[in-house]
Amino acid sequence: MSGRSFLQIPGPSLVPERVVRAISQPLIDHRGPQFAALLGEVTRGLKDIFRTVEGRILLFPGSGTGAWESCIVNTLSPGEKVLGCVNGHFSELFCRTATAHGIDVERLEIEYGAGVPAEQIEQRLRRDRDRQIKAVLVVQTETSTGVTSNLAAIRKAIDAANHPALLLADVVSSLGCNDLRFDEWKLDVALTAPQKGLMLPPGMALLAVSEKALEANRSAKCARSFWDWQPVLASNVGGHFPYTPATALLFGLSESLKMLSEEGLENVFQRHARLAEACRRAIAAMNLKLFAQNPAEYSNTLTAVAMPDGLDSDAFIDHTLKLVDLPLGKGLGKVKGKLFRIGHLGSLNELELLGVLAGVEMALKSFGVKIPLGAGLAAAETYLLETAKKRSPL
Amino acid sequence: MSGRSFLQIPGPSLVPERVVRAISQPLIDHRGPQFAALLGEVTRGLKDIFRTVEGRILLFPGSGTGAWESCIVNTLSPGEKVLGCVNGHFSELFCRTATAHGIDVERLEIEYGAGVPAEQIEQRLRRDRDRQIKAVLVVQTETSTGVTSNLAAIRKAIDAANHPALLLADVVSSLGCNDLRFDEWKLDVALTAPQKGLMLPPGMALLAVSEKALEANRSAKCARSFWDWQPVLASNVGGHFPYTPATALLFGLSESLKMLSEEGLENVFQRHARLAEACRRAIAAMNLKLFAQNPAEYSNTLTAVAMPDGLDSDAFIDHTLKLVDLPLGKGLGKVKGKLFRIGHLGSLNELELLGVLAGVEMALKSFGVKIPLGAGLAAAETYLLETAKKRSPL
Amino acid sequence: MSGRSFLQIPGPSLVPERVVRAISQPLIDHRGPQFAALLGEVTRGLKDIFRTVEGRILLFPGSGTGAWESCIVNTLSPGEKVLGCVNGHFSELFCRTATAHGIDVERLEIEYGAGVPAEQIEQRLRRDRDRQIKAVLVVQTETSTGVTSNLAAIRKAIDAANHPALLLADVVSSLGCNDLRFDEWKLDVALTAPQKGLMLPPGMALLAVSEKALEANRSAKCARSFWDWQPVLASNVGGHFPYTPATALLFGLSESLKMLSEEGLENVFQRHARLAEACRRAIAAMNLKLFAQNPAEYSNTLTAVAMPDGLDSDAFIDHTLKLVDLPLGKGLGKVKGKLFRIGHLGSLNELELLGVLAGVEMALKSFGVKIPLGAGLAAAETYLLETAKKRSPL
Amino acid sequence: MSGRSFLQIPGPSLVPERVVRAISQPLIDHRGPQFAALLGEVTRGLKDIFRTVEGRILLFPGSGTGAWESCIVNTLSPGEKVLGCVNGHFSELFCRTATAHGIDVERLEIEYGAGVPAEQIEQRLRRDRDRQIKAVLVVQTETSTGVTSNLAAIRKAIDAANHPALLLADVVSSLGCNDLRFDEWKLDVALTAPQKGLMLPPGMALLAVSEKALEANRSAKCARSFWDWQPVLASNVGGHFPYTPATALLFGLSESLKMLSEEGLENVFQRHARLAEACRRAIAAMNLKLFAQNPAEYSNTLTAVAMPDGLDSDAFIDHTLKLVDLPLGKGLGKVKGKLFRIGHLGSLNELELLGVLAGVEMALKSFGVKIPLGAGLAAAETYLLETAKKRSPL
Repeated sequence: MSGRSFLQIPGPSLVPERVVRAISQPLIDHRGPQFAALLGEVTRGLKDIFRTVEGRILLFPGSGTGAWESCIVNTLSPGEKVLGCVNGHFSELFCRTATAHGIDVERLEIEYGAGVPAEQIEQRLRRDRDRQIKAVLVVQTETSTGVTSNLAAIRKAIDAANHPALLLADVVSSLGCNDLRFDEWKLDVALTAPQKGLMLPPGMALLAVSEKALEANRSAKCARSFWDWQPVLASNVGGHFPYTPATALLFGLSESLKMLSEEGLENVFQRHARLAEACRRAIAAMNLKLFAQNPAEYSNTLTAVAMPDGLDSDAFIDHTLKLVDLPLGKGLGKVKGKLFRIGHLGSLNELELLGVLAGVEMALKSFGVKIPLGAGLAAAETYLLETAKKRSPL
Repeated sequence: MSGRSFLQIPGPSLVPERVVRAISQPLIDHRGPQFAALLGEVTRGLKDIFRTVEGRILLFPGSGTGAWESCIVNTLSPGEKVLGCVNGHFSELFCRTATAHGIDVERLEIEYGAGVPAEQIEQRLRRDRDRQIKAVLVVQTETSTGVTSNLAAIRKAIDAANHPALLLADVVSSLGCNDLRFDEWKLDVALTAPQKGLMLPPGMALLAVSEKALEANRSAKCARSFWDWQPVLASNVGGHFPYTPATALLFGLSESLKMLSEEGLENVFQRHARLAEACRRAIAAMNLKLFAQNPAEYSNTLTAVAMPDGLDSDAFIDHTLKLVDLPLGKGLGKVKGKLFRIGHLGSLNELELLGVLAGVEMALKSFGVKIPLGAGLAAAETYLLETAKKRSPL
Repeated sequence: MSGRSFLQIPGPSLVPERVVRAISQPLIDHRGPQFAALLGEVTRGLKDIFRTVEGRILLFPGSGTGAWESCIVNTLSPGEKVLGCVNGHFSELFCRTATAHGIDVERLEIEYGAGVPAEQIEQRLRRDRDRQIKAVLVVQTETSTGVTSNLAAIRKAIDAANHPALLLADVVSSLGCNDLRFDEWKLDVALTAPQKGLMLPPGMALLAVSEKALEANRSAKCARSFWDWQPVLASNVGGHFPYTPATALLFGLSESLKMLSEEGLENVFQRHARLAEACRRAIAAMNLKLFAQNPAEYSNTLTAVAMPDGLDSDAFIDHTLKLVDLPLGKGLGKVKGKLFRIGHLGSLNELELLGVLAGVEMALKSFGVKIPLGAGLAAAETYLLETAKKRSPL
Repeated sequence: MSGRSFLQIPGPSLVPERVVRAISQPLIDHRGPQFAALLGEVTRGLKDIFRTVEGRILLFPGSGTGAWESCIVNTLSPGEKVLGCVNGHFSELFCRTATAHGIDVERLEIEYGAGVPAEQIEQRLRRDRDRQIKAVLVVQTETSTGVTSNLAAIRKAIDAANHPALLLADVVSSLGCNDLRFDEWKLDVALTAPQKGLMLPPGMALLAVSEKALEANRSAKCARSFWDWQPVLASNVGGHFPYTPATALLFGLSESLKMLSEEGLENVFQRHARLAEACRRAIAAMNLKLFAQNPAEYSNTLTAVAMPDGLDSDAFIDHTLKLVDLPLGKGLGKVKGKLFRIGHLGSLNELELLGVLAGVEMALKSFGVKIPLGAGLAAAETYLLETAKKRSPL
């Protein structure tokens, strides 16, 4: 393939070359003073991104699925009950992780395409008079549907019910892409992975945990070793880890945190919002429908597009890959074949997005969907021009 | 700047990451056996690209302007006459290089935007009864105007005049982008630089030279040391150079030659032709005019677009850079302010080109040019779809 | 720091630049066809290194400590008994991992510095008439002491006792460094991490598992989700993973497997053996003692050197880092302060080792240990010359 | 080859990975504002290294040999006389460059191994009553012999003779390695290449030129185009070049200048001096002789070692490459076969140097030279310990 390839699955996204170069640095002793400095830097940077002062940061080599396990086994005991909000494939899997470790998951089923309704959580918790529900599990951005739930509202709902349940949030496809306030929203665990808004290759699990979560940790009975928080927290005091850390990724993380800080977190969110809106306008101009139902819940990380009736999105995605070498995200689980997902997260700019949208237009057209070529692009261009800020070229 | 930046000047183009990684290899002894093997590999690969069996390859750290000097001082003597075909900024400079070294340049002035007319060369050479003209200087692709002259026809013209003049061709913006046949067209010198079709960072001068050019070299009296061919040819026999070569670039060249060979030279040319035609159709749909006058001479390396009357292309290019971070080529020399140039050479694909065209549309619109947003893109998409080949994704 | 830094802890070792460059490749869709090809390649290559035809390969983002957990929770049930051979810090931690998951670990205590005595295993298993012991846990190379136990003999011991226990082996500091025969020695799990003989940055857990281990897996009751083998094996059939894999590391692994295959596994082992012996001879010539007791068990991956009486090895290691920027491995757990460890694994050559030994000499001398400067180096040089093979410089 | 290879020729030396990574950055428009900023940064940094406030910096893609040509053709006219100091292969070639361009070179022949005698220059210039000698050509560090001449003394000699000749100095193997004061020593041209003390891959010619040299430039009649200073100086005002510059190398140069500035130029010189002295002590302890005759002129960039009588240094160097993969510098020109050269310049540290010296010991021993293994190393270690400064590990 000539030229630079595109990777428009909703994460991992392409790693910026600054980060690639940082990852290429020679390894250092993970028990030495240079490493301790690196860890300090990365921890401080992550706290800024999580918007937490009080929370503790935990890093593991692993993945987002590992972060689920680390969250569950450190805060809960087998047999305990949790309220699991299921509105997509990844919230489904988050709940299954809990089940695998003996947790009794009461499922709050939500239609795919909708966000988690805070009021239903409040109602359920109010009914939980004897405080059997130990935690609420929720995914902020459902990567399978392109829906971002309102975490602030969920926090208010729990408070309104005056319920002590922990709020355990998957922020994998949110952190570094949209607003997230660990302290303000009193999250107890916010778990994530680095290949989304943090712009790294996959290979880590990251968690921010509250004092209340740490208290729960002391009495949590789930068997654990690798994912155990206590040895990590203890070792981190001395600037190292109880296991061999993924040093190269930490080099990269240090650089991507620097980039986010240079751009400014608010600007990063605005950029995501602007590119996402351009994408949605293009989709609308192509006469296609978004899978997400509620504009207030549209994700700025990815856009899930409903496949026109009678067409299989898996086949469309294969076609797109062959036609223009553009990988898109498939429909997962219950929505297999029904939608395709366009990632517009991490390190991305207007011209790249427009190239992607052109690829989507071409692929749709040649897949037999009746769309006017160029219409989606014109809509995106128009919006981008309306919202353009001239930048200084330096 | 978030995302990957674009560089749509007509060379240097962006270096493919395979080549970037090759350049990153640790340096080796430029007088050792590993280097000799590298040089052999690179020389063989270049001969394939130049389509020469008999020609000799000469490599210098330098630039295309250095290649001009190397060509002139090695084949000519002060006071000798040459016929210099001037149809753009770079052919102008090529001729000035000859003048600087005491050569008497008779200029064949051609309107900027037109190619070199073979018939005029034939006429002039026929009139040169006492064979005063020692060489014809011609630029295959005028990077300043987007015009590719017909070198095969020029060779035929010289033959028709039965004239012994050397044919000295600048193929900087042609080699690796469009057809070029050193042996078949009996070129005497074909000089180039690596930052165009060879997909490297700038920093070299490359020449293929014929047996006849080497003969001329023996009697050429221009003063020379660095650019002298003889010490290079002598050292190359032993696998090294009389100066410290740009080893890192040679690592890269070895890789880019591998890439060109993997894709197949004909496929590389077709890709350039297809992307170039898509670009031209987009420009036409934007109701803008090409600067090149003759469709048979449209360059597949770059497209020069005439700036609408009353607008300054320098200002437009600055605007484009600020608006969408897209560097385009300015009008050079006589055409300063009158055109902008879009490079579509080297490692480039459809989605990148479409992103670039979207950027051009947005920039034009916001610069005040009345264009229908999306029209250019639709034209390009339509053409690309008509000419698409589904590829195997592996 | 000027020049290239050294990293002589016993892993991670420095990553060869070929691997660094491979890791730098742009990410690809981990659910696409290119990824499936990569996975196939890596799996086949690992089977060659593990010397297994029948075994299944499992890859996780994680670490060696994660591989312990994956091994334990997939093959055992809470309450089951295992025989844990403890002859160093890492075998200690391997056993603690089992304990953390409710396994009843019967410890076979072995003096630190000695290998695992096969005959004691045989005796214990013979006494285990009702087959309560479900598995034997053993670390092939104890990274904390520089001792490599005889896995072949342990296999024979289990067979001699005619006992059905699984043989679960940590081969972290062995794979790619010394002989290891998964099929021939009938290992049931061989678990490792990539930052040793596989020459990668840390960030993965790798396991080879036997058919018998897979059978045990079906009935194993330990809670598991992330580390569960079944979803991985199921997904791998289609060329992907149930979690987001560490794609960048897999790029690197593909390259390092290529390097091992190019050098030839036997040559890789011989190189490790030769450099290790040179290191030991240098240490002997410095009048220092190895921590490993039995020459037949000397590790070729690292050498643990007993700190002379009255001196603290932690202080010595700090001194060495400050003096010559050379990180060495500290004494861990019970042997803290009593030894220092020199890694000579992965990508390393003679001149690098000699530089390291010179650094050790200088650091010892200036730390107050009475050694004749140059004596250790002379011993190493002598041995290396005796065993030198002239290589072709290409 | 396993491990990191060594490259102990006296330049190019191995490029530090920070610089390698800087070179890997995506290309930018060489006529755009980002480039102008880069050029400004690089120019300012180089002025600091040259220690000039008044001098102008000129950069060309090319090599040191190109810098010779640029120096000659810009300051002199055919037929003019210069005094060429010849004390080694490179000063010989510098003079030949002048001859090639029609300059009348009066050679001051100095024994190879000795520095340029300032008093002889003074005498010759005093005799030049009618000021026929337009320039003195001198090489500060003769890379072929390991001799550094006293430029300050030469300046004084010219002043003492009250002679207006230009002082044209090749500082290729000096800049960034040892003291060099462009303004204080009133150099007129100091020319260099980046692959020595500037720690870059080869591919550039760099010059600092005085006001007086610029004045000479105005009347110099040598034919020139590529190497002409005027168009470069004119373009540089606007932040660009008249040719396509070697942008990737400029990225690298910006980083290496940052590294030199971080370390501090005096510290860089001290490091070179210390490693060079360690090398010389090792050579002495091996009972070998330096080729340089005068301790005050020993180069800190490289050490030329006289091959023991009866042995051919070319064969020894081939042997060394095959035995330990260590490239050393051969004897060039008149001293072919008579010496080998060890580079200890650029980015290098103690352990690397000691590894190199161990390689030299092993190669000598196995080549049949009677040396006590370890003796050279012990001498180097002793000296390094005596002069060690404990560094903070961060």
